[in-house]
Order: sequence, then structure tokens, then C-alpha cells
Amino acid sequence: MHEPIRWQGQVVEILDQRRLPWSVRYIRCRGPMQVVSCIKTLAVRGAPAIGVAGAMGVALAARGVRCRDPERFVSRLTQRVQPIAEARPTAVNLAWAVERMLAAARKIAHLPAEQRFGLLKQASQQLLKQEVAACQEMGRHGAELLPERARVLTHCNAGALATGGYGTALGVIRAAVEMGKQIEVIADETRPLLQGARLTAWEMVADGIPVKVIPDGAAAMIIARGGVDAVVVGADRIAANGDVANKIGTYAVALAARAHGVAFYVAAPTSTLDLNCPSGQHIPIEERDPEEVHSVAGRRITPQGAGAINLAFDVTPAELVSAIITEQGVARAPYEHSLAEMVARATRAGRS
Amino acid sequence: MHEPIRWQGQVVEILDQRRLPWSVRYIRCRGPMQVVSCIKTLAVRGAPAIGVAGAMGVALAARGVRCRDPERFVSRLTQRVQPIAEARPTAVNLAWAVERMLAAARKIAHLPAEQRFGLLKQASQQLLKQEVAACQEMGRHGAELLPERARVLTHCNAGALATGGYGTALGVIRAAVEMGKQIEVIADETRPLLQGARLTAWEMVADGIPVKVIPDGAAAMIIARGGVDAVVVGADRIAANGDVANKIGTYAVALAARAHGVAFYVAAPTSTLDLNCPSGQHIPIEERDPEEVHSVAGRRITPQGAGAINLAFDVTPAELVSAIITEQGVARAPYEHSLAEMVARATRAGRS
Repeated sequence: MHEPIRWQGQVVEILDQRRLPWSVRYIRCRGPMQVVSCIKTLAVRGAPAIGVAGAMGVALAARGVRCRDPERFVSRLTQRVQPIAEARPTAVNLAWAVERMLAAARKIAHLPAEQRFGLLKQASQQLLKQEVAACQEMGRHGAELLPERARVLTHCNAGALATGGYGTALGVIRAAVEMGKQIEVIADETRPLLQGARLTAWEMVADGIPVKVIPDGAAAMIIARGGVDAVVVGADRIAANGDVANKIGTYAVALAARAHGVAFYVAAPTSTLDLNCPSGQHIPIEERDPEEVHSVAGRRITPQGAGAINLAFDVTPAELVSAIITEQGVARAPYEHSLAEMVARATRAGRS
Repeated sequence: MHEPIRWQGQVVEILDQRRLPWSVRYIRCRGPMQVVSCIKTLAVRGAPAIGVAGAMGVALAARGVRCRDPERFVSRLTQRVQPIAEARPTAVNLAWAVERMLAAARKIAHLPAEQRFGLLKQASQQLLKQEVAACQEMGRHGAELLPERARVLTHCNAGALATGGYGTALGVIRAAVEMGKQIEVIADETRPLLQGARLTAWEMVADGIPVKVIPDGAAAMIIARGGVDAVVVGADRIAANGDVANKIGTYAVALAARAHGVAFYVAAPTSTLDLNCPSGQHIPIEERDPEEVHSVAGRRITPQGAGAINLAFDVTPAELVSAIITEQGVARAPYEHSLAEMVARATRAGRS
């Protein structure tokens, strides 16, 4: 499969996910503001992936700060990367990745400019590698939760495209397939931007995993009819109490899963856990341009004069979540305790 | 507003709803099979509207049966209209309307062919008038249930286009506006065929009623945030126990409404009640061409190799339904009793 984000010399190349599955094209970013633009316009999306892109953006920004004085370097870099941290509000990974990169920058601030860039580029590559490794770990943990034969419903795209590689929810599915389980994926198309129909289906077809796309509104009926054995989704931010912010439409699936006793799993790296955020009520929910609702794949579908509401995310309350699968293990209710434990393990492992 | 179905001399004209809101064009039907094709391809849709179209199709069919013998006329007509009754399986109105028209045909079978056609054409016009009048009655009953200021969420299109005029769910909204209530409509876009984004928004804009379109998956979050005061939807078939078959996506909205204590109303004429059907389990659910899911407004959105599931309807269990609004009054649980009472009233009023 094509890499979603990669270094090419001194340039960060970002696979333009808005054009998938129709064409495969990379955007070449020479400076941090191009990365910000890719994040804002969803050329790259998915909480872990925008974290990685943001980290690479910090390295690009460092290349532009040539001053020798370590303190001035750090303060100017901190200023320059502010737009990266604020490019999108809901995922916590952006701020997390920028903070990590700034911590790394502080340690090497005394070195010559060229060397600083090289080391920060390396740090961002390390972060990508680490996020992909986390996906593989979480895949192994999550795959054990799925039956030998399972029809797994997922919402949006929590795959390689959303993480830099392997995927969170799709990582669980990939790991289950690697373990020899028979998995069929049911992919919510995920309006307005169709990440399920365009991206999840594309990843699954590429891997030869059977996938059926459904309208978002059909999930409840298919679950009611017994057509789904488990739900696995990703997350953009998980609060300390286990409330999960994820792509708009997730909450409706969780309600249907609960109504029919189907397990509802969330797969996310510890970088998506925000223990400073007590509950879902405190997660800022991005509202995007209504135009995304008025049009589908470039064609206007509503009459002039109609309005639209375009919330990018919703919040699934912790009580609807059967388990949260992280690279450190599987967290279950009460989440206040289990999520803190996952973060503690990640810290011990040198991740946070 | 444009009439969705009308007689023009000896021709039935059907407004092609697949082209809305982009263009207003009528299909001229000279025989019953053209009407069947309009119903199957969703040029006309909505349970009451396809009932009316079916009735007009029976009149067109009668024009083609010239034999004088009354018994042969009835038996040949019965045969010719079978494809109308079977054009779509879920709505009960098709079979209901065809049965009513055949009953009328039996009474006038002894008359000359030209006269029979004229009388059956008249009977179909009568049925249209009656369905529109029923919408106005149910609008009055339903409007009283809405607060003075209300944001009303609806799914699919249960408007004039779905009924021949005024509408069921949108009839309730229109009546509330006529009573001076301040109503804002939140319209689920209703994938795959976008009846909400294309048709409900079009009707509301035409009437000057504020309308905001949302992705189907967003309804639960908007309800959770307190953005919806009531839900009103139409129905394709209602079983004797109050289970409601309606456009796919309705059930998910009902689950969200229940989770947040928001009233969930169903507006439907007694012609949509099927007391012979004990529960939702017995309602046949139409499965349509997966191509409708693979594409939006003519553009393919999924990669080659992906499958799709395209259930046209879902079933909302009676326990999630706050009330069923009919032209005979408002039915509440236990529905076995209240719906039977509505049908009894309709029979006394000469409707059934």
C-alpha cells in the first residue's frame, strides 16, 4: 500500500486522501504552513496521522529557524509551530506530537542549525515508526477479542491512512486476518466526506479483505438483523472517564450496538488518551464548512436556500464502550482507572 | 408547488423526483407499465404517493381492457394490474390502492368501456384528493403535539412529493407553521438516494420554512446536544402492534431520540396501517440495487472490488414510538388497540 506520509529528502510528502480512491497523488510540503494546510483541508486526516504530520511539520519549521542562540531558537520555533498545534481542535494527537517535538528541540537547541534539523527529522520518523508499532501492538490485543468468524462493522477510516500505517480499528482487523480469522468488514460510508466508502474500502480491497459499504443510517438495521458480530472504531480523543470523540456518526452506531448486545470496541494509541480532559463534555467539537454537507464528491445535492449543520465529531459516552484497545493492553470500565494505567505503562515504556 | 402526480387528459403525468432539485420534469404515462416503471425506479416514491400512482395506473389499465363481458373485464383487469400491486414490496399502500380500485371496477364492470375508464379515472382522482385531505387532517392533529417554538428533525421525505400533496410528516410541520408556530426543520439527508437533502429541503425552501440538512449519522449528536425538540417521520407500513417500517436510517434516529427523551412521532394515513401484519418482523424489507450505495448523484464513490448492502427500509419497534398521527386522530400505546380504533373510524368515515 502507498505510504500516507513520508520524508523525501528535505520535503514531507503527504498522500492526498481527498483524491482517493480516484487517484493517488502526493502533496510536497517544504514548510510547516503547507503541512498545516494539508491537515486543515483533510488531505491528511485521522488523529495519529495528523500527529505524525504535525511532528514532521515541526522539523520543517526548525529548518527555517537558523539562529544560533538556543533560547531564541526554542522560543521562535515554539511560535512557528503554534499553527500546527491549532490546525484542528478535536484530536489531541496534534498538540501531543508538537509538545513532544518541542521537548526534543529543547534538548538539541545548542547544536548547529543543520544538525538540529537532521535530529528533529529523525525524531519525527521515530514518532511515525512508534505509532505504526503501536497499531501493530493494539492489533494483536484487539484481534483476540474477535470471534473466529466475524462480520466487523467500522465507521470512518481508522486504517493505515489515518495513522501512518497498519491502522487502529483496521489494525485490529488486519491482525485478526493475520491470525487466520475469517473477517468480513462492513464499512459505514461516513458522510459527509465518505472516508468509509473511499478510504476504508480502498484499504480493505488492497489487502484482499472482503468489505461491504453501507449508508451510515443502515448500520442500526443491519445490527438489529444480526448482521454484525462486533463494532470496532478509532478515536480522535478519549477523555479520562472513557468518553470517546470520534467521527460524526459513531455515537449512533454505539447506541444500536448497545440496543442489540453487540460489542462496541474503540482502538486508539495512548497518544489519543487525554487524561487532562475529565469527560466528553470538555472535548472541543470541530464544526466544519457546511459546504461539505451541501455537496457530495463535487456535486451540489441541496437546493439553494437550504442550510446545513456540519459537526465533524460526536461523543460516545463511556458506558456504551465495551473496551478501549491500546498498544499497552485492553482497558475496560471503570475507565478512570484502566486508562490511567495504560498511560502509566506507556510512560514506563518511554512512549509519553 | 408542483403537483407530484396528475391526470392530463388520458395521460398520467408523474413528476420525476430523481431529477429534483436540479430540474422539474414530468414523465407522461400512457399505460400501466409506465406507471410501474416510475414506481420501481423511484421517479415517484413515498407510500401514499405510490398508492395514488398505482390507482391511476389501474385506470390506465382499464382503458386497455375493452371487452364487454363484466366478468371477463374484471378478471383481465385484475391480471393486468398485478404488476402494479407488486412493483414494490414494503409499502402496503400499493396493494391497498389496487384493491380499492378493483372493488370500484367490479361495481361498474357492466358499463361501456369508455365510461368505465372515466369512472375509474375519477375514482383515482378521488383517492388522491382523499390522501391529501388525510394529510391535512393528520397535520392538524400532529401540529398540536409540537411546542410553540420547535426544531423538528425528519428523515427522508414525507412531504407533498411522497403523498400527492401537503405531506404526512411535513404536513404536520406545515400545519404547525399555519397555526403560527415557529418551526425549524432539521432534515436528515437520507442516503443513499438523498430524499432529505434533495426533496425535503426543496419543499421547505419552496414554502419558506427554515431547513438545515445534516448527514444521517449526525442526528444522534445533534439530539444529544439538545438541538432537536421533536422527531416526526412518515411510514411505509405500520404493523398491528405499532412497529413502523420506514426509510432506512429511521431506526437509528428513534434510538437516539429515546436515549435523550425526545418525542418520536410517526405521521401516516390509515391506508399505511396493516392490521393483517402482526409485527415488524412480518414486513417484507425491500433490498435494492447495491449500485445506489456505490454512487452518489451519478459519481462512483467506492473502489472497484468493494461490495455494498442496500436495504431500502428499516423497522422501528413500537416501544420507541411516542405516538402515531393519523387522519383519524393520534394513536398511542398500546397500539394493538389504538390502531384498530383508527382503522374502525376510517371505515365508518367510508375511507377503507
